[in-house]
Amino acid sequence: MNDFQKFAALDTVALVDGRVVIIDQTKLPGRLETLRLRTQPEIWEAIKSLRVRGAPAIGVTAAFGLALAARDLADAGARDFSSALAEAAAYLASSRPTAVNLSWALKRLLARAGEQAGEAPGRIAEALQAEALAVAEEDVRVCRAIGRHGLSLLRDGDGLLTHCNAGRLAAIRYGTATAPVYVGLEAGRRFKVFADETRPLLQGARLTAYELSAAGVDVTLICDNMAATVLKKGLVQAVFVGCDRVAANGDTANKIGTLPLAIAARRYGVPVYVCAPTSTIDPDTPDGGRIVIEERPGSEITDQWYAEPMAPAGCRTFNPAFDVTDQELVSAFVTEYGPVRPPFAEGFARLFAAKARGEAFA
Amino acid sequence: MNDFQKFAALDTVALVDGRVVIIDQTKLPGRLETLRLRTQPEIWEAIKSLRVRGAPAIGVTAAFGLALAARDLADAGARDFSSALAEAAAYLASSRPTAVNLSWALKRLLARAGEQAGEAPGRIAEALQAEALAVAEEDVRVCRAIGRHGLSLLRDGDGLLTHCNAGRLAAIRYGTATAPVYVGLEAGRRFKVFADETRPLLQGARLTAYELSAAGVDVTLICDNMAATVLKKGLVQAVFVGCDRVAANGDTANKIGTLPLAIAARRYGVPVYVCAPTSTIDPDTPDGGRIVIEERPGSEITDQWYAEPMAPAGCRTFNPAFDVTDQELVSAFVTEYGPVRPPFAEGFARLFAAKARGEAFA
Repeated sequence: MNDFQKFAALDTVALVDGRVVIIDQTKLPGRLETLRLRTQPEIWEAIKSLRVRGAPAIGVTAAFGLALAARDLADAGARDFSSALAEAAAYLASSRPTAVNLSWALKRLLARAGEQAGEAPGRIAEALQAEALAVAEEDVRVCRAIGRHGLSLLRDGDGLLTHCNAGRLAAIRYGTATAPVYVGLEAGRRFKVFADETRPLLQGARLTAYELSAAGVDVTLICDNMAATVLKKGLVQAVFVGCDRVAANGDTANKIGTLPLAIAARRYGVPVYVCAPTSTIDPDTPDGGRIVIEERPGSEITDQWYAEPMAPAGCRTFNPAFDVTDQELVSAFVTEYGPVRPPFAEGFARLFAAKARGEAFA
Repeated sequence: MNDFQKFAALDTVALVDGRVVIIDQTKLPGRLETLRLRTQPEIWEAIKSLRVRGAPAIGVTAAFGLALAARDLADAGARDFSSALAEAAAYLASSRPTAVNLSWALKRLLARAGEQAGEAPGRIAEALQAEALAVAEEDVRVCRAIGRHGLSLLRDGDGLLTHCNAGRLAAIRYGTATAPVYVGLEAGRRFKVFADETRPLLQGARLTAYELSAAGVDVTLICDNMAATVLKKGLVQAVFVGCDRVAANGDTANKIGTLPLAIAARRYGVPVYVCAPTSTIDPDTPDGGRIVIEERPGSEITDQWYAEPMAPAGCRTFNPAFDVTDQELVSAFVTEYGPVRPPFAEGFARLFAAKARGEAFA
């Protein structure tokens, strides 16, 4: 079995025999290595060092981690189980404090523990393991639904373009932006995918090109600045991207480089689909102007990956990790409940209302 | 004297004591090294290996090289001086066969030799040295004029954005896209420059950021995909780029990434100025559709500069070296005779007519 075959059989994160098993993404694309994480510091370090990354994937990793902590505390007969559990959650949350899914998953598990407060620690630990597995299963379900809805927007043989990695390596199995391709593959449908390498951290080259190649998808790697040429030449019929946060009006924060891609796609009449689990749509943020954009160290531009620095010493840099794509550049948001088309503020309101009533959204 | 001070005192290419002295650009930004080239194979290798690059700079290098060849042939008492000289020119031209300036400069020197065909080889060699120095001086004059005209489009303190290296390292002293900054500097005017790193070959990071830093210019390095954010935030008031070939209608071939930059600049109302010596305007190419775009090896995307490959083995790539910016995205061409504004076909015709009559262009 070669690496691609091994990869295809793996989940990005899994709970196996009391271990959190992850693909070590810092080793890709050169080597496929899995890590079997047991202790809390091991799990913390794996998230901190981006061995596992992508909002859904680290949410699941933390959930599995807290379930293991509960099991350890129960086995050790911890005196104050619930406060020790809260401490363990705070420790895991500190690995990447800005990732929303991470704290969301941990809060969900703590809430579950709270519901069973009177019971024996062993029972609570069992409940937390079940809850963590439910978080993982939900991610797969949501991504699969996004894939199904995205697929309905495509014709067989279409060329697609994606940016960064909103793929299975960012989630558990299907990813978000890649979900239409993977769900399509299961149905025997084939697409030609162009993957932006995605400077400065090269998630497109290192991860997206890897996972699509492993799945047997026809993928072509380009530099970010070549996407406009691909669009102009008519090589792609749709752009699919993920998102980090969507404002109530549809303005979308995603990996740096999404904005110029969407601007170029508009010029050449190619639709831009943002794959967005409803959990990433934030009704409390009215528009993109309110989204604070993280700036990261300039060494990511000048030094990272290189044998020697690629800029003069002391050169000033500007390294925003995300940009905000104006809502009018987005053709539709592909959610697990279906595509939301403009005007987005109304569409999101209808979506959330339908969800609250447990009704279908269309 | 530190490297930046040494750099400021150097020309990109110079003829010194019968040697072609170049800055070895493959060593930048890490080390400032000059090479003193004497033999024809040394000069050929320096062009071939991109130790000297940029259309004007390699034109001047080849001209100096052929002048040295003429001197050697004269000193050796070559029997058939003129055919030996033509052979030397063909050899130098083969170093980078697609570069127009290179063959243009060599043809110019051969024509000069032809004019003096009856004279002693020693006299012809002297004439060729004078002609080669004239090629170099003309480059400085043309770039300086472009700088002066570009400067007239700017207000003090403006933010500028540039792509790739159309700087002094691509020419002899001022460069084209950087000329307004350098000419401005001489007049005590200051600008804040953002430099795209320019994937995959990183000419912006390695060369533009270096040369502007060395000159004391306030330069900020960004990844290409961050330019749209810089434009959206209103941090720059103009985009200045060079060009490889301009069609008769104004469609412009330049380093890959120029097109998406121009598209984004248009969206945010920032003018795009293409700095174009009239030698790069090609009246015989009606529009950009006729410009053949060189595709280069995918290893430039996946392997070059890196300690280990950054894409899965065997990954398909698409690596066009240039793109074509549609003429309607260009605000003006800044030529040595002044800015040409739309409609460009008419403007270029008036420019060439004025030039032919030896009249001023306005």
